[in-house]
Amino acid sequence: MANSRFEYVKLFEQPDVLLPNTWIVVRIDGRGFHKLSDRYAFAKPNDRRALDLMNAAAVEVMKELPDLCIAYGVSDEYSFVFHPSCQLFERRDAKLVTTIVSTFTAHYIHQWGTYFPDTPLQPPYLPSFDGRAVIYPTTRNLRDYMSWRQVDCHINNLYNTTFWTMVLQGGMSNTDAEQELKGTISSVKNEILFKRFGINYNNELDIYKKGSVLYRQYQLEEVKPKQSSTDPYAEEEAAPGQETTSRSQQDKIRKLRRKAQVVVDHIDIIKDEFWERRPWILSNKPGKLPAEA
Amino acid sequence: MANSRFEYVKLFEQPDVLLPNTWIVVRIDGRGFHKLSDRYAFAKPNDRRALDLMNAAAVEVMKELPDLCIAYGVSDEYSFVFHPSCQLFERRDAKLVTTIVSTFTAHYIHQWGTYFPDTPLQPPYLPSFDGRAVIYPTTRNLRDYMSWRQVDCHINNLYNTTFWTMVLQGGMSNTDAEQELKGTISSVKNEILFKRFGINYNNELDIYKKGSVLYRQYQLEEVKPKQSSTDPYAEEEAAPGQETTSRSQQDKIRKLRRKAQVVVDHIDIIKDEFWERRPWILSNKPGKLPAEA
Amino acid sequence: MANSRFEYVKLFEQPDVLLPNTWIVVRIDGRGFHKLSDRYAFAKPNDRRALDLMNAAAVEVMKELPDLCIAYGVSDEYSFVFHPSCQLFERRDAKLVTTIVSTFTAHYIHQWGTYFPDTPLQPPYLPSFDGRAVIYPTTRNLRDYMSWRQVDCHINNLYNTTFWTMVLQGGMSNTDAEQELKGTISSVKNEILFKRFGINYNNELDIYKKGSVLYRQYQLEEVKPKQSSTDPYAEEEAAPGQETTSRSQQDKIRKLRRKAQVVVDHIDIIKDEFWERRPWILSNKPGKLPAEA
Amino acid sequence: MANSRFEYVKLFEQPDVLLPNTWIVVRIDGRGFHKLSDRYAFAKPNDRRALDLMNAAAVEVMKELPDLCIAYGVSDEYSFVFHPSCQLFERRDAKLVTTIVSTFTAHYIHQWGTYFPDTPLQPPYLPSFDGRAVIYPTTRNLRDYMSWRQVDCHINNLYNTTFWTMVLQGGMSNTDAEQELKGTISSVKNEILFKRFGINYNNELDIYKKGSVLYRQYQLEEVKPKQSSTDPYAEEEAAPGQETTSRSQQDKIRKLRRKAQVVVDHIDIIKDEFWERRPWILSNKPGKLPAEA
Repeated sequence: MANSRFEYVKLFEQPDVLLPNTWIVVRIDGRGFHKLSDRYAFAKPNDRRALDLMNAAAVEVMKELPDLCIAYGVSDEYSFVFHPSCQLFERRDAKLVTTIVSTFTAHYIHQWGTYFPDTPLQPPYLPSFDGRAVIYPTTRNLRDYMSWRQVDCHINNLYNTTFWTMVLQGGMSNTDAEQELKGTISSVKNEILFKRFGINYNNELDIYKKGSVLYRQYQLEEVKPKQSSTDPYAEEEAAPGQETTSRSQQDKIRKLRRKAQVVVDHIDIIKDEFWERRPWILSNKPGKLPAEA
Repeated sequence: MANSRFEYVKLFEQPDVLLPNTWIVVRIDGRGFHKLSDRYAFAKPNDRRALDLMNAAAVEVMKELPDLCIAYGVSDEYSFVFHPSCQLFERRDAKLVTTIVSTFTAHYIHQWGTYFPDTPLQPPYLPSFDGRAVIYPTTRNLRDYMSWRQVDCHINNLYNTTFWTMVLQGGMSNTDAEQELKGTISSVKNEILFKRFGINYNNELDIYKKGSVLYRQYQLEEVKPKQSSTDPYAEEEAAPGQETTSRSQQDKIRKLRRKAQVVVDHIDIIKDEFWERRPWILSNKPGKLPAEA
Repeated sequence: MANSRFEYVKLFEQPDVLLPNTWIVVRIDGRGFHKLSDRYAFAKPNDRRALDLMNAAAVEVMKELPDLCIAYGVSDEYSFVFHPSCQLFERRDAKLVTTIVSTFTAHYIHQWGTYFPDTPLQPPYLPSFDGRAVIYPTTRNLRDYMSWRQVDCHINNLYNTTFWTMVLQGGMSNTDAEQELKGTISSVKNEILFKRFGINYNNELDIYKKGSVLYRQYQLEEVKPKQSSTDPYAEEEAAPGQETTSRSQQDKIRKLRRKAQVVVDHIDIIKDEFWERRPWILSNKPGKLPAEA
Repeated sequence: MANSRFEYVKLFEQPDVLLPNTWIVVRIDGRGFHKLSDRYAFAKPNDRRALDLMNAAAVEVMKELPDLCIAYGVSDEYSFVFHPSCQLFERRDAKLVTTIVSTFTAHYIHQWGTYFPDTPLQPPYLPSFDGRAVIYPTTRNLRDYMSWRQVDCHINNLYNTTFWTMVLQGGMSNTDAEQELKGTISSVKNEILFKRFGINYNNELDIYKKGSVLYRQYQLEEVKPKQSSTDPYAEEEAAPGQETTSRSQQDKIRKLRRKAQVVVDHIDIIKDEFWERRPWILSNKPGKLPAEA
């Protein structure tokens, strides 16, 4: 049956296809997690259960969307990265972002009880997330984005670790601790931790200091000593923005990617080494599965 | 502490503020619900539990976001409507859409067990939703959008009711039923239902025939007999797109809206009557709370 | 012959269709006209030849694009308005804006000699214009836009008239005149003009005080004394955003519009009267041609 | 003086900043030049005067906007290219496009008489141009865009040369010539030209076969024999999207660029050689001025 009299309203839908041949980063953030962490009594400065739950939900997103190359999480935020050659949902912005936000939320809510067995959710105060997509033209830009998040993780964690140690172990008021830390550089915070509390910040857990990196695991490559600095861009030659691989090839690649295990790592992603040993992340070409996988 | 070397990547974030003084419709859709309804054995043609769960999640979204005027749900989709004067999240597209998608998903997952007590969720096959925003310049366009969805509900439900009756009660194969219904007009389907199965389509439940309309409940207004046809546009004079109400006034209105009950109705929204008796929906001015609410 | 290896680059072109059922305003501005007006010795505060040249070029744009409803010019800027029902160039933003900018520029350059017979153009210092489109959802917004430009015209012209009279007739330095006028309200400027120089600002030419309004001339309508305030929106009922008129009807309307004379008026467009007597501007329906046209 | 009551309309202007660190191509096209070329009796298949006028106008655009790296023209179209590091007009789309369209139009109209001394413009039938911007993330994409246009030039020119020779020298009707050429490959057209008319297509003028390339002239570089294929991307390391050069440095570079002569070349831009010998085009770093410039 026709629905023609009203159907013209579809004309108001505007296209939102993201520019081809660019990296797509979808970053999601917990909505009102400051308040929420109080309500559910998250430990300070880091709640291991909450981080593990974030990572568990993110692993499910990575599994559901084999097009994702890598993800990086810190605190209540997570960044998911699609390769420039990605054609998922024809690269429609809203579709990509809402699929990730909704899938993440579904698993976060569903697994809450596993990670917080003694703290049931109190409706209507449920955790939720907002998100957005940003595109980056070059691999350098993408890597700088990832570095930006990891530097932020470091800055915030050093601050929070020092602040909460001063408050919880040092008995200071929030205001006094805040006042003393205002404008201080890293070395000052390290010193406060070490001199007053005997804490060596370097011994803190990597999950707190470096955040969580998710990617598919293949056999690591040896780093060639004379790796040229322009190598990271080599893949741009091969995939200049058009769909060069046939649909059946793409499906095959997707299957291969599904077979690889998604691992959760806490490791430096600013230096070259991480990327050079895992070339499949930037090249988007599946590596060799580990022999004993 | 500075994070300056990498912070330039923020410059790649592009603004996505929706045009002022337009209606914002956020429509969300179940992802892969055809497959999902098989996995969780939804009843055909309509599963009352699934619809009630959709409505329960939508009610929570309406409560959480008092800026929403009205919502309309059918099958696995829901449309949420913000008034042209809405300033929530500075009208940022991604923020509005992802907040609704995530809040909806969270409540849908969390209340699943209430509506499907005997059918636990089977991870990783969790329900999820995608969504997008569309803007409409005039009240006529918005009402035509709502009519479009309700006509669609009617068309699909009549088809599905006939099809599944032919299959489940008539013992036809899916293919045969599909073949017979292909291209038929409404009256033919009504006749099949009535003559072959003694079913009067008019007696089907309104929730199936008309979908679900959610709004805040105030005292209904008498419809004036000589209502001018241009009245619906009157509010556009009053709110030409700028923020005319102060922030404290807005907070007050938001509080008033929170007090009103969100009701779930199954009613015609194509004709004028629905809108004329509930002028607060299009005017965005809270009505009088029902005396005995 | 195929051009397939490189043709993928077309995929990077992103759609720029303007939201349906909205007013489209294309405003163009002279580039660097402050410097240019010195180079070609424009009279201060207003150069009648320069304004007449602007108007002549704008008339040609109106003639070339019968879809245009109205235009308003002041100083070195011009605003051209398309009706919400306009489908020209499928409402593509760049196409609409560049067509207007280029057509305007072409006529401005070509007619320069007519208006500045003694001041030939000195390449490479040629006049040029930039432009952009803005869309407005309601007639109220469009009229407020037009009012905004005319109020701006008044504010600037009163200032400039006073300033240049103080400098040119009063012998003050630019700095002193600027200093004295800083922060003054209208009445002060009126008084300076009248008391010091015997100039009654009201007697200044309307082209300077009110700018220039271009529209197609039909028989003016009597203003009905009890015109309802919502009438301006009546046309929105009739044309809710879809193409309701057939292509042949549209061509016919276009022909009718070409027959109407484009007039240059200097008149108040802030009050209702202008619009009520010329209902064809907002309704987009051609009126009756004047009997003695 | 305040203009506050109407000023809210400025809020409807939506930002249009182009993604940082991408190549910006502004392509302009003659509006209705098929008809126009009849009106002004352009020679077929190519009118040298018309092409020279296009090139003259494009040279003026290059001179006026030193941020432009290169331009390529064929028939009644011209593509102007800004470097990924370009910050002109804060990379606002409409501003960049309209400035180029208007400047080009101004010079085209103004120099018309120089190139068509015997064919004065006939208002209102003035030449005009529309235009749009497209962004490209990588140097490979940009070069493929340029190649696309030059291949198009070749395809069209071979067709037009053959078609018009068949018509003008061979006395065929337009329809017959069109019919015979339909679907033919290059070699067939070459053969028609050679066997029937004794024309060797290779001897046609390069301006017709290759179009026109505009760039600033510095000392050509020797092509190093073992040039790595990834070198073109080296500049992306240096300018990853942020403004790394100070404003004063930028002004200095702009001055240097103004000093360089803009040349009009008719040369292959598909192969690497053109780009390797003129590295300043892709690197955006001014080269050495020719000794005898």
